[in-house]
Amino acid sequence: MRIVYEPYEMQEIANKYREWGKTIGFVPTMGYLHKGHLSLVKEAKKNNDVTFVSIFVNPTQFAPNEDLDKYPRDIERDEELLKREGVDFLFYPTVENMYPDGFQTYVSVENLTQVLEGASRPTHFRGVTTVVSKLFNITKPHRAYFGKKDAQQLIVIKKMVENLNFDVEIVGLPIVRESDGLAMSSRNKYLNKKEREEAVCLYKSLQKAKEMIDKGTDDAETIKQEMRKIIEKYEIPKIDYISINSLSELKELKKIEKDNTLISLAVFVGKTRLIDNLWI
Amino acid sequence: MRIVYEPYEMQEIANKYREWGKTIGFVPTMGYLHKGHLSLVKEAKKNNDVTFVSIFVNPTQFAPNEDLDKYPRDIERDEELLKREGVDFLFYPTVENMYPDGFQTYVSVENLTQVLEGASRPTHFRGVTTVVSKLFNITKPHRAYFGKKDAQQLIVIKKMVENLNFDVEIVGLPIVRESDGLAMSSRNKYLNKKEREEAVCLYKSLQKAKEMIDKGTDDAETIKQEMRKIIEKYEIPKIDYISINSLSELKELKKIEKDNTLISLAVFVGKTRLIDNLWI
Repeated sequence: MRIVYEPYEMQEIANKYREWGKTIGFVPTMGYLHKGHLSLVKEAKKNNDVTFVSIFVNPTQFAPNEDLDKYPRDIERDEELLKREGVDFLFYPTVENMYPDGFQTYVSVENLTQVLEGASRPTHFRGVTTVVSKLFNITKPHRAYFGKKDAQQLIVIKKMVENLNFDVEIVGLPIVRESDGLAMSSRNKYLNKKEREEAVCLYKSLQKAKEMIDKGTDDAETIKQEMRKIIEKYEIPKIDYISINSLSELKELKKIEKDNTLISLAVFVGKTRLIDNLWI
Repeated sequence: MRIVYEPYEMQEIANKYREWGKTIGFVPTMGYLHKGHLSLVKEAKKNNDVTFVSIFVNPTQFAPNEDLDKYPRDIERDEELLKREGVDFLFYPTVENMYPDGFQTYVSVENLTQVLEGASRPTHFRGVTTVVSKLFNITKPHRAYFGKKDAQQLIVIKKMVENLNFDVEIVGLPIVRESDGLAMSSRNKYLNKKEREEAVCLYKSLQKAKEMIDKGTDDAETIKQEMRKIIEKYEIPKIDYISINSLSELKELKKIEKDNTLISLAVFVGKTRLIDNLWI
């Protein structure tokens, strides 16, 4: 695996592979890799001639009060994991190379980013779509892989790609979970033992929603109430939001719509904000 | 010359040429072509294996009170002119293909767009950078050609390309003028005979600035006053702005800086708003 630090160098490599008629699979990450990331890497490997992974903790998607500085990092371990997967190129740029002095250009998706994570984190998605635009221009992938855990991110990026005519296929892959059901996340590292135990509440509430829908309940308010009850049984967790939206436009739904429903929630477990979701 | 209407088709053609290792020169236009546009086309032809021109009157760069509906169009004549220049592909999309229902993604350059044209036309550059991003993703050029007449546009696009890592070289070419000095513009068509005569005031005022600088004047305020006097001698023209800025950041200058000065102005000649400029 070759590690590339300079955007222009990564772009030259991408150009070469495109000229050779090879397909490029790309997995953008913020590092501190877990099995969720690795599932994306495996899929990229399987379906493309060459696999690029980026590790970049992107400052523009963190608000000043958020966890940019303490975001977990372990580049040696990440390198090792990516080598083991047979990744061809790791793009690992510095903040200065990605955001040089005088940086002032942003990509924004408007409507889809007003709700859910965007309502709780108003500048977050502008940072995401800006850095993903940059990464796409640098790595020129045929396919890029994102986890469904960041459901809104996936939907927003698909819209951006469609609207700006990026020549890349966006592939969304299932959430990977710990044995008790907790969705894998680099932020799980922040949890102490008790918090880690109670963090399962997000999954439990989604399981409840799934059960209710399987049994025929389609009223969104009823489902959300039951989810809320589950979480309130725990000591530490505090709900930020529980929401049921259309997948197409992220509009709040009153009734579950088959193949067009996203049930999502954000919960503070201690100081750590966790998210999880279910696609119906 | 082949005419392509569909973005995905244009993109496939661009991919083919890139795979064949051919360089693509691209000239984005709003049509109603004049010698200014054709100078860009000639330069693109000269330095690239294949030349793409787009004609698209981009609605997102016009404010509701501006001249989108009456913007001059003559596609037959444009086609003829481009054929004569030996253009390989004309990309001529519909508004519906470029901005389908649910379109909501925009590219914005922040600081550089707050002044000059951006101050007079607050949503203009967001429309420009958005459509140019789309066009770059669709046509995948190695080099793209813009006129210096839209000086701020050229500077803003260069910043966007640099900030978002677009893999394209931006080439800026000199203003092409009528025999009396009026800068070529599709909007000159709006002028009646008397207005057309008086429209030369923009050039005359820039000539005066040039003379003063050549003779050693470097005080921006003095130069602007003299430019103002020239224009005020005419009957119809009304000044929107006369400004002297750095080329690097478009900051207002008190003193002329060699190789870093843009003298620019916008003037209403009747209902028609004309712009012109001088790079020092």
